[in-house]
Amino acid sequence: MIVVIKKNQEKTQVDNLINWIKGLGLGVHISEGENSTIVGLVGDTSKVDIDLVRTLDIVENVTRVQEPYKNVNRKFHPQDSVIDVGGHKFGGGHFQIIAGPCSIESEKQIIDVADAVKRAGATLLRGGAFKPRTSPYSFQGMGVDGLKLLKKAKAETGMPIVTEIMSEEHIDDFEGVDVMQVGARNMQNFDLLKKLGKLKTPILLKRGIAATVEEWLMSAEYIMSEGNPNVILCERGIRTYETYTRNTLDLSAIPVLRERTHLPVIVDPSHALGISRFVKPMSLAAVGAGADGLIIEVHNDPPHALCDGAQSLRPDQFADVVGCVSKMLPVVDKELD
Amino acid sequence: MIVVIKKNQEKTQVDNLINWIKGLGLGVHISEGENSTIVGLVGDTSKVDIDLVRTLDIVENVTRVQEPYKNVNRKFHPQDSVIDVGGHKFGGGHFQIIAGPCSIESEKQIIDVADAVKRAGATLLRGGAFKPRTSPYSFQGMGVDGLKLLKKAKAETGMPIVTEIMSEEHIDDFEGVDVMQVGARNMQNFDLLKKLGKLKTPILLKRGIAATVEEWLMSAEYIMSEGNPNVILCERGIRTYETYTRNTLDLSAIPVLRERTHLPVIVDPSHALGISRFVKPMSLAAVGAGADGLIIEVHNDPPHALCDGAQSLRPDQFADVVGCVSKMLPVVDKELD
Amino acid sequence: MIVVIKKNQEKTQVDNLINWIKGLGLGVHISEGENSTIVGLVGDTSKVDIDLVRTLDIVENVTRVQEPYKNVNRKFHPQDSVIDVGGHKFGGGHFQIIAGPCSIESEKQIIDVADAVKRAGATLLRGGAFKPRTSPYSFQGMGVDGLKLLKKAKAETGMPIVTEIMSEEHIDDFEGVDVMQVGARNMQNFDLLKKLGKLKTPILLKRGIAATVEEWLMSAEYIMSEGNPNVILCERGIRTYETYTRNTLDLSAIPVLRERTHLPVIVDPSHALGISRFVKPMSLAAVGAGADGLIIEVHNDPPHALCDGAQSLRPDQFADVVGCVSKMLPVVDKELD
Amino acid sequence: MIVVIKKNQEKTQVDNLINWIKGLGLGVHISEGENSTIVGLVGDTSKVDIDLVRTLDIVENVTRVQEPYKNVNRKFHPQDSVIDVGGHKFGGGHFQIIAGPCSIESEKQIIDVADAVKRAGATLLRGGAFKPRTSPYSFQGMGVDGLKLLKKAKAETGMPIVTEIMSEEHIDDFEGVDVMQVGARNMQNFDLLKKLGKLKTPILLKRGIAATVEEWLMSAEYIMSEGNPNVILCERGIRTYETYTRNTLDLSAIPVLRERTHLPVIVDPSHALGISRFVKPMSLAAVGAGADGLIIEVHNDPPHALCDGAQSLRPDQFADVVGCVSKMLPVVDKELD
Repeated sequence: MIVVIKKNQEKTQVDNLINWIKGLGLGVHISEGENSTIVGLVGDTSKVDIDLVRTLDIVENVTRVQEPYKNVNRKFHPQDSVIDVGGHKFGGGHFQIIAGPCSIESEKQIIDVADAVKRAGATLLRGGAFKPRTSPYSFQGMGVDGLKLLKKAKAETGMPIVTEIMSEEHIDDFEGVDVMQVGARNMQNFDLLKKLGKLKTPILLKRGIAATVEEWLMSAEYIMSEGNPNVILCERGIRTYETYTRNTLDLSAIPVLRERTHLPVIVDPSHALGISRFVKPMSLAAVGAGADGLIIEVHNDPPHALCDGAQSLRPDQFADVVGCVSKMLPVVDKELD
Repeated sequence: MIVVIKKNQEKTQVDNLINWIKGLGLGVHISEGENSTIVGLVGDTSKVDIDLVRTLDIVENVTRVQEPYKNVNRKFHPQDSVIDVGGHKFGGGHFQIIAGPCSIESEKQIIDVADAVKRAGATLLRGGAFKPRTSPYSFQGMGVDGLKLLKKAKAETGMPIVTEIMSEEHIDDFEGVDVMQVGARNMQNFDLLKKLGKLKTPILLKRGIAATVEEWLMSAEYIMSEGNPNVILCERGIRTYETYTRNTLDLSAIPVLRERTHLPVIVDPSHALGISRFVKPMSLAAVGAGADGLIIEVHNDPPHALCDGAQSLRPDQFADVVGCVSKMLPVVDKELD
Repeated sequence: MIVVIKKNQEKTQVDNLINWIKGLGLGVHISEGENSTIVGLVGDTSKVDIDLVRTLDIVENVTRVQEPYKNVNRKFHPQDSVIDVGGHKFGGGHFQIIAGPCSIESEKQIIDVADAVKRAGATLLRGGAFKPRTSPYSFQGMGVDGLKLLKKAKAETGMPIVTEIMSEEHIDDFEGVDVMQVGARNMQNFDLLKKLGKLKTPILLKRGIAATVEEWLMSAEYIMSEGNPNVILCERGIRTYETYTRNTLDLSAIPVLRERTHLPVIVDPSHALGISRFVKPMSLAAVGAGADGLIIEVHNDPPHALCDGAQSLRPDQFADVVGCVSKMLPVVDKELD
Repeated sequence: MIVVIKKNQEKTQVDNLINWIKGLGLGVHISEGENSTIVGLVGDTSKVDIDLVRTLDIVENVTRVQEPYKNVNRKFHPQDSVIDVGGHKFGGGHFQIIAGPCSIESEKQIIDVADAVKRAGATLLRGGAFKPRTSPYSFQGMGVDGLKLLKKAKAETGMPIVTEIMSEEHIDDFEGVDVMQVGARNMQNFDLLKKLGKLKTPILLKRGIAATVEEWLMSAEYIMSEGNPNVILCERGIRTYETYTRNTLDLSAIPVLRERTHLPVIVDPSHALGISRFVKPMSLAAVGAGADGLIIEVHNDPPHALCDGAQSLRPDQFADVVGCVSKMLPVVDKELD
């Protein structure tokens, strides 16, 4: 970390700062310039509160040279992490497609969709039991009963299952779930992250709706620093001024993350855009950008038909996406397995 | 809610939608136009998932006429809510100033600051015991021990106390806390909101870092719909592209909220900007915009001096802010008490 | 357009509004509801100022059913527009790659780069003569002299040329330029757009840095409404809160535009991200999302080496991008020609 | 400027960079560290393209210590600039209220409004002759004829006049205009800024809709560097994800600008929010934040009544705003004159 001190500051103020830095166990390298004094911090600066230092009156500017994250940092772990979920691998050239309904509604529904997406090429099954909803009056999911149905679908199809956890209170109920998803709204629910860090179950960590790449990596660091190395990142769109799509899918985050971290990164084109007819082009775009997988909503309920056109695809539409994705994967040296 | 159907759609698709709406217990008023069919929904539409309807292929457009919130809605509660905290009132022309340190560090520190801010005119005391931090390596607060010290400061000074709760696990420890604060990162931690809705303790609900006014009101609705009517909203800056200040304080939210809700709204200029020398102008701006109170960070530790210039004010600077605010209040027909 | 009137409004106010609408030559269809009155506007509503109506005190809500643009609207021109530039076609399944240096610096430089990108597969040549720079102290481009060199490179290589126009004063100097580019900062320089609308030269219209899709289409409408049908849209990244990349490339805009307009859309991954090593993944992502072409910065100056790693690619890196793009095009049914 | 070089970079690459810096006439101060090399640039770094340096592969990080602007910089001009417009002063404790209609519509209209706002306390008159409109089908203003009517209103009332210029072609027609306004969409129309820099007429420079404070100051620098010292900045709201108000009024920009520049800063609450009933609270907020003036839309056409409730105030509502503003000014040590 480099701290630039304004010129003509009181010596005691500057000394106070330097002593505080030393008190954190860091070395200090001072270089007096004509217009300012440059203080270099030597050692592990991840515990220095950069926002605090930046706002001191005597400070002109602060620059972090070291990243504030360690476990997730590619510098200290140059190879891709490969996370195995029931024999399906995330990262390291492997590509996975997670698919299933937005909400689990009944045993028949989840098993039918599971069969359909498996036939179409999905490798893992998703389904929502606990649903975070903006309104208290919206359907909040089947809860624990939904989890049971999802586990039945796993038993029937052999597909590993992915579902969202909203509260540390439910951790015991998630026994048997293969990937526990942390939703965008909980990306900085630090108490929950710490608890999940004590497990070994892979965690699918969605990006917060206005989270920077660095904040997102810091949330992954919360999980890893507690001992769980199995974190999969999931880009799902960020909030911008544009309202034509629900969110703006930030695909540039993928090559950026590739440099910063060894963790796998997948993309959720269904939630990002909220419109099923955009799922196909954005899935192909995600492959082009270098994603390690996709998570796609698929429903299986043509008679009710309501969801036609919403963010969920029909199984035949989903099969078409899988087909095109498969054709693209060789160009980016990846393999669906 | 008004749903505009595209022209030349299949009748079965349109009928499916209409039957689904009726199945929700709503009436339907259909008006066939030249270029589109307009479907008006009659009844309580708060349970209709507008995002779902908007994404249907047959739908051109959806407009909500009724707001999706009820308990917080000024339409159904035209008078300002006045929330009494130990004799200090929020809303209805009353103005409160909450002040105290960012973190509770020791008994002496919190009691000294409490004395100082009380003398300067603060009406409630704040202090952080549980601290949400982006990095797992940053100081996470004194926790339960901090709460105990804060309660001592309350006993000594008679000031009601305000502090943040991060997890439903700690609710019992907050016995004796006068206002429980929900931080920006937990604004959509719905499990926590529901638990707090079962209490009667006033809740200070900070706006999420990229929350719309509507999402914020829906989170307040979560609390109120469980039975707790005592919600105070707190604007603390939103995330924008501009990086000169930490966040962009959205003061226009105040007159907007004033029309939409009967709940009191206060402003946190310390966190919004992250720079103490901007606290004074933005406090005065908040008064001008019509806020019902302020929450300001004040520290009391000149020998260590580190925080000079950071987001916390010294007691004398804080007294100057209180003085100017007091002069402005009569212009907006408010009273500090 | 549908205008919802609040309940219990003064009749004269409502009548004033209705008469004003009729005065614009529009029909009115009124439907009285329990809680509000719905006014449907019949006819060409593109001249109604929706912002004005929305802000009237008596109005609860306004929804536009018709889009405010006509010439660019796919509804009135269902087939893709195909724009021919010296035998190279944009749109309708054709794919073009425009490449060249950020700035024209000398005759040798522009001709060398032109040769290099042509060999590598580029179909059009770009090069900046007039450079919009944030700072008045930065290099502003070679101006008219640069244009002359660019035309020489066209004569030598036979490649059509693309370059930015910043002011209507220079239109005459652009004689011989095949595509005139309007930069992001001038997307709403309406006087310039109107002048370009009187030409027949294809216009490459970059998206403004915080322009909505609708505003962007309205700027294209300015050009087309004056008589020039040859508009190519170019996504180049939007401004968001994220600072890891210079801008956030909004690739979802491509399928959105595909539905709204018949105009071709290309992508500029060099400016969007500002980092050359991200150009390849984001070019492939653009192909996946359905773009009709790319515009990529390439330099040819290894001895000076300064720009290594900046947003410009070396010719060999560019050739690699062209190779991978070519492999991907068949999956999306497009052809580079 | 401080450039941090990654460790283990090729010496020739580092030397290339250093030679390029020296070639710009700058001195270089190198300090070798354990993990990186720090290069300090000594001299006038305003001509260094920080974006270019930042994207070099060998560079870890770049920090600007000096601001990239000079003429507008408070460091080199510590006193407030005071800009005199027909005897009315902007800056230095003076406060001005500019008022008038959105568009000039007729001689009677502009003179009637001028009289009304003068009586209510406005010190300058505004009125739009050239109107930048998103749609080519919207009213584009009366143009040169509108300017003539505005000058008549000036002659009748003695009020200095403020109006927007959209194109360098019209500069001659603006003879007699006291303040030439550059709108948000033209904030980076650099050709226009350079032309206005050759005049002495005060320029009211509105902030671009997504402009950073630094970009805005750089646009002011374009004007000042050509010789015109009379620039007044105008905050008018920025684009964010929030849609309850048209834009988000960024009042924190005022204290930020106060530190960075000596130029006066005023606020436009009418355009920022687009809703007249929010003009009063946001005007008072602007005073609290430290603004040097306001620009407010006022109309005078009760029989047509359409605009009631839109962004324009009636004269009596405007008089109420002026009254409350006047009461607040002494608290912030300012004076309306």
